[in-house]
Amino acid sequence: MKLKEIAEFLSLEYNGEDIEITALNSLLRANFTELTYCDGEKNAKDIPNTGAAAILVTKEYENLVPKDTKVLITQNPHLSFAFLSKLFAKPLFEQVKEKKQNIAKSAKIMPNVYIGNNVDIGENVVIMAGAYIGDNVSIGDESIIHPNVVIYNDTKIGKKCHLLANCVIGSDGFGYAHNKNGEHYKIYHNGNVILEDFVEIGACTTIDRAVFDSTIIKAGTKVDNLVQIGHNCDIGQNCIIVAQTGISGSSQLGRNVVMGGQSATSGHLKIGDFSTIAARGGVSKNLEGGRVYGGFPIMLQKDWLKLQAKIAMKFKE
Amino acid sequence: MKLKEIAEFLSLEYNGEDIEITALNSLLRANFTELTYCDGEKNAKDIPNTGAAAILVTKEYENLVPKDTKVLITQNPHLSFAFLSKLFAKPLFEQVKEKKQNIAKSAKIMPNVYIGNNVDIGENVVIMAGAYIGDNVSIGDESIIHPNVVIYNDTKIGKKCHLLANCVIGSDGFGYAHNKNGEHYKIYHNGNVILEDFVEIGACTTIDRAVFDSTIIKAGTKVDNLVQIGHNCDIGQNCIIVAQTGISGSSQLGRNVVMGGQSATSGHLKIGDFSTIAARGGVSKNLEGGRVYGGFPIMLQKDWLKLQAKIAMKFKE
Amino acid sequence: MKLKEIAEFLSLEYNGEDIEITALNSLLRANFTELTYCDGEKNAKDIPNTGAAAILVTKEYENLVPKDTKVLITQNPHLSFAFLSKLFAKPLFEQVKEKKQNIAKSAKIMPNVYIGNNVDIGENVVIMAGAYIGDNVSIGDESIIHPNVVIYNDTKIGKKCHLLANCVIGSDGFGYAHNKNGEHYKIYHNGNVILEDFVEIGACTTIDRAVFDSTIIKAGTKVDNLVQIGHNCDIGQNCIIVAQTGISGSSQLGRNVVMGGQSATSGHLKIGDFSTIAARGGVSKNLEGGRVYGGFPIMLQKDWLKLQAKIAMKFKE
Repeated sequence: MKLKEIAEFLSLEYNGEDIEITALNSLLRANFTELTYCDGEKNAKDIPNTGAAAILVTKEYENLVPKDTKVLITQNPHLSFAFLSKLFAKPLFEQVKEKKQNIAKSAKIMPNVYIGNNVDIGENVVIMAGAYIGDNVSIGDESIIHPNVVIYNDTKIGKKCHLLANCVIGSDGFGYAHNKNGEHYKIYHNGNVILEDFVEIGACTTIDRAVFDSTIIKAGTKVDNLVQIGHNCDIGQNCIIVAQTGISGSSQLGRNVVMGGQSATSGHLKIGDFSTIAARGGVSKNLEGGRVYGGFPIMLQKDWLKLQAKIAMKFKE
Repeated sequence: MKLKEIAEFLSLEYNGEDIEITALNSLLRANFTELTYCDGEKNAKDIPNTGAAAILVTKEYENLVPKDTKVLITQNPHLSFAFLSKLFAKPLFEQVKEKKQNIAKSAKIMPNVYIGNNVDIGENVVIMAGAYIGDNVSIGDESIIHPNVVIYNDTKIGKKCHLLANCVIGSDGFGYAHNKNGEHYKIYHNGNVILEDFVEIGACTTIDRAVFDSTIIKAGTKVDNLVQIGHNCDIGQNCIIVAQTGISGSSQLGRNVVMGGQSATSGHLKIGDFSTIAARGGVSKNLEGGRVYGGFPIMLQKDWLKLQAKIAMKFKE
Repeated sequence: MKLKEIAEFLSLEYNGEDIEITALNSLLRANFTELTYCDGEKNAKDIPNTGAAAILVTKEYENLVPKDTKVLITQNPHLSFAFLSKLFAKPLFEQVKEKKQNIAKSAKIMPNVYIGNNVDIGENVVIMAGAYIGDNVSIGDESIIHPNVVIYNDTKIGKKCHLLANCVIGSDGFGYAHNKNGEHYKIYHNGNVILEDFVEIGACTTIDRAVFDSTIIKAGTKVDNLVQIGHNCDIGQNCIIVAQTGISGSSQLGRNVVMGGQSATSGHLKIGDFSTIAARGGVSKNLEGGRVYGGFPIMLQKDWLKLQAKIAMKFKE
């Protein structure tokens, strides 16, 4: 799409050179054919380092933009970006005359399954009844997709994964831009989800796709039922995520992290390797690896246990 | 159904005039062809104001019943009502020779979709594989129903809504009447769910239908994954409901209310416009609008933060 | 499978009499054709009482094994057992030429339903569109299976049960054995789920099958939406389990227990008859029946309410 068309679509002024924009991307990942945006003070420091072809930015940060990056001035870059995300969104599914499907002969496909275009299905894969496999999905050898599982387009699934009934992989993340009237505009998520080898996903668990790039669950990680994993999370190898845990967007878990039942993280946090979060722990800050945490706000689990005992004692009087 | 038949079905005495009862309804909504009930002290004050054709009531409140309302005396009106709700329940689906379906030509219907009788589907609507669309459902223009979504009968969906994979709209609310032996009898929910325009519902989220009348999600409200919204809730415009939140039956949220992840309300509460409930906040009373709340029991979020800091400090000693 | 083959498969030494092993089972349930294991100190006391044909055990407990039970020495019996559980796992579904199905003529089966082999479906049962009924499932008279429900193989469902949309019954429990490198090996769950008569299961609720034996929900129990019930739970008659509750593996609830919204139990606990757990209560120990509990750690609900009031008062100063 041409930059001038984009400006016109957004009702923004642009008199510079017209160029082709191929995609949207974040400040530090956007390349010389991509458009990015800066949504405020927090990210402004990264503006000088962008390699984007063009940027949506407020007047106040215009001076930070590198000289090779075209500038679209807007009062609400995040909102402008949300509008654009719809234009650049891939279709949920393509209607083609003849689907291109690379399905191993040893794979077993049960009835009432939907398989999209440009799909790769490996040796001995089992796809059980009612499952939905979107366009551009690949599923590695010996993985099992249980009944009524939904795998959205562009998801990549490794070998020997188990996806239990009714789980959903690759749904849009919960991201919106807001206007002055308090109305919310959907940010279409053009990234995907990657599940590496030996990953297991529980029944009715939901894993959202990334805005850009990938939500990733690394090899050997096991996720229980009814867990929510937000967009752009990076879950390390061999983690154990117990039922009803909620992991907010852009959380980073190291390897062998254990999240107890009904635990949670707020977004954009890092939890170090070999940490354990006890059941109900609510992680509200970065955590060093190798220790056992609990409570909400989060603390060392042993401190939380002591604290609860002291409180009970104190107020018994 | 005739009132004398109803009395006989419930093994209750009734010697008055026989009349036709067309439906069940609540004390203050029931009209002159409908039957209602009073389930105890809490609602007894409304008995004199009912316009119902007939009422199930305990002996002690008989004297409060208006003279145009026929009386069925029962020791457990709620239980009698539960028995009746089954008789008056609409069928989950009707088997008709030829379904009446009003589906726009521009709508796209993927394979393995079930569409019931008397369904309206607007322009450019997309219904993805495995979705279930019950009888008497209407779906407004440009809405997208994702794979394996279940929309129960009588649900009304506005324009430009997104219903993500495996969400369930219009399941029966969790309501039971109890007998002396501690056995529970299902109350069949004959109301419905209304989603206004621009509403988004996350993957594996569940929204229960009303007992009578409607559970309603107003225009522009966005609901994340794995959220529970109980029967008869009234969720205002442009609310944001983050993942794993639980909203108990008959809660009323104003406009632009934000419910953080894993937050909750107990039932029959009002939350004012522009309130924010922080993650994990447990709303246990009505809340004035425009403020940020947190903790459980609920308080101002800034007070909760201070309180947690003071507690940690105090017991460090 | 021959015991010598098993030893070879696990790379363990075994020079004793070769015998046929028909199944895996727990220490106290295994019979004279079954193999069991002891995973450490906690269960070692039960070794002398096993009736198993053979046992996987560490060197240190070898002397506790009864003389009729063959011994396979291994450094990590739980891990060896996990490897074996895959060999003994029943297939998720069987592909047979002609399925044996015993479906009452009065049953209604909607389109896009999958029904496996060796299935019994009673009088007036309704199976709605998109449902999955695995092999060896039985469904009692007048039960209703809502759209897109998944019922795994071997599940037994009583009469007059309601299973709401997208719930999952009989998924594998969340159990793994671990090696020294922190890698997790799936324990295939060969038990099943039993729902007795008059049980109701909410939308998007998940109930895991037992490792051995059964996860059981007794007659008249009602379970709301988005609830997790772990493997080997034993839920008594007429319980009420409100939305988003999490019940960990091997929990035992007496009759008429009420679990409030978002409440939880940790595993292997007993909750006495007629107990109520308030919303958000986190049960961390066995509880005597007939009382109302709340808070986390759990206490009497009245004490929790007092405690919260005292804390608020104390720190107001």
